[in-house]
Amino acid sequence: MPLSPIQEKVALAGCELTASTKSYTFQVDEEDDSDHILALSVVCLTDGAKDECNVVEVVGRNHENQEIAVPVANLKLSCQPLLSLDDFKLQPPVTFRLAAGSGPVHLAGWHRISKD
Amino acid sequence: MPLSPIQEKVALAGCELTASTKSYTFQVDEEDDSDHILALSVVCLTDGAKDECNVVEVVGRNHENQEIAVPVANLKLSCQPLLSLDDFKLQPPVTFRLAAGSGPVHLAGWHRISKD
Amino acid sequence: MPLSPIQEKVALAGCELTASTKSYTFQVDEEDDSDHILALSVVCLTDGAKDECNVVEVVGRNHENQEIAVPVANLKLSCQPLLSLDDFKLQPPVTFRLAAGSGPVHLAGWHRISKD
Amino acid sequence: MPLSPIQEKVALAGCELTASTKSYTFQVDEEDDSDHILALSVVCLTDGAKDECNVVEVVGRNHENQEIAVPVANLKLSCQPLLSLDDFKLQPPVTFRLAAGSGPVHLAGWHRISKD
Amino acid sequence: MPLSPIQEKVALAGCELTASTKSYTFQVDEEDDSDHILALSVVCLTDGAKDECNVVEVVGRNHENQEIAVPVANLKLSCQPLLSLDDFKLQPPVTFRLAAGSGPVHLAGWHRISKD
Repeated sequence: MPLSPIQEKVALAGCELTASTKSYTFQVDEEDDSDHILALSVVCLTDGAKDECNVVEVVGRNHENQEIAVPVANLKLSCQPLLSLDDFKLQPPVTFRLAAGSGPVHLAGWHRISKD
Repeated sequence: MPLSPIQEKVALAGCELTASTKSYTFQVDEEDDSDHILALSVVCLTDGAKDECNVVEVVGRNHENQEIAVPVANLKLSCQPLLSLDDFKLQPPVTFRLAAGSGPVHLAGWHRISKD
Repeated sequence: MPLSPIQEKVALAGCELTASTKSYTFQVDEEDDSDHILALSVVCLTDGAKDECNVVEVVGRNHENQEIAVPVANLKLSCQPLLSLDDFKLQPPVTFRLAAGSGPVHLAGWHRISKD
Repeated sequence: MPLSPIQEKVALAGCELTASTKSYTFQVDEEDDSDHILALSVVCLTDGAKDECNVVEVVGRNHENQEIAVPVANLKLSCQPLLSLDDFKLQPPVTFRLAAGSGPVHLAGWHRISKD
Repeated sequence: MPLSPIQEKVALAGCELTASTKSYTFQVDEEDDSDHILALSVVCLTDGAKDECNVVEVVGRNHENQEIAVPVANLKLSCQPLLSLDDFKLQPPVTFRLAAGSGPVHLAGWHRISKD
């Protein structure tokens, strides 16, 4: 998807975390010189989820460039089956991890691609 | 709705998904050279919904231009009858699909039309 | 409230929908050449609401300039007494309508007035 | 906090409404020529709240410069103890008022100070 | 993470508040001349939380440069286990404090670093 200098595109982004696929890394081609920002919008339990706590963590880098793991959702089917986030901005590469529970948990967001 | 070079307009957008109309595609005229961004704001069960899980998926393209289907809501009348999303930005064409349940589910959002 | 060319103002906006006043139209003076955007923030049941479904619709124009009615909230006192929307942007004139239930439902938002 | 021409600062803002202090007015020095926008983020019941409806109103000016009072939250400890608002923008002076209930209700937000 | 004049970066931010670590201060190097804005996105109870009220306060400076403490969340595992905030912007240094309850409470957000 080549971009002219002033264009900005938004793409759809999503992944599923389960007992067998406990993490997902969102990354972009390192040779790509566009700016990529991932905005996480929804974390949502779907069919087959047990009534247990499902904790989703984001693993990324803080402002001192250290890797940190940050819980962003604690979902339970009977109580809080989904979470709408407000434009939680992340810079790839970033990993989403099911730190507790067995899912399935779906993450959905959008992804802004721009050039200076 | 012709736009002068620096104008930006917002329009209302919405659709209904039911057992008989399980998907809706939002698209714009291909010859239109304006920029179109659809922001999905609310997903809401209305009258006649059964007490079952209603999963709404967005079908669009990721940053590698592959088609992906991403669940964005799992609604149940007695527990989570509606979901407010935070400015979930989508670039048309994009399809909304009732992947589980029979609705009726309403989607509401706004649509920004701009020219460079 | 005259504006100098680069000023931007935000004003408060709100209305009440009841069994006797089922709709409210937000409009601005047609001779006003400022840009007006209404952002709907909260839809909220207040004192005297019965425990019934209250469906609030927005009636406005889509990107093809057709009038459409879009449900944006389904509120019930015992289950979901209020809804916080994320900066749901609307361009006046726009009408809010109580499509089911008898309220009282309050809508609150803010209104950005700008000049190019 | 003097600002250089292009700086923008964000400050923290908050107040408490109770049976004895039913309103709070947020205002800035009239001789201050910076632009001030208050974004209301959270309305939250805290310790000592009774299980009753607490209605919080915002009193400000609409786009025709008339004073209006707009309910923005209806909180009850057992059902909806807090409300997260989406960047509800207000221009000072603005008053927050406990229109029903006895609190304590806390309001939290941020405040953007900028110069053209 | 040196920045060229027009670059903007987003970093991940997070901390945990417990009975033994009741506060956390987010600060940046004073000699750093970039602009830092912290946006608080999620406050979330995790494993081991008791069913008690957990009140999280933000301690920062208001627009008159006075230190103030503002409650932003009142979480209880059985009722409101997490809170999604809308882009609650804070300027470092800022302190998060567990004013009631024993947690563990996780705070997650993002952090924008920019240069003029």
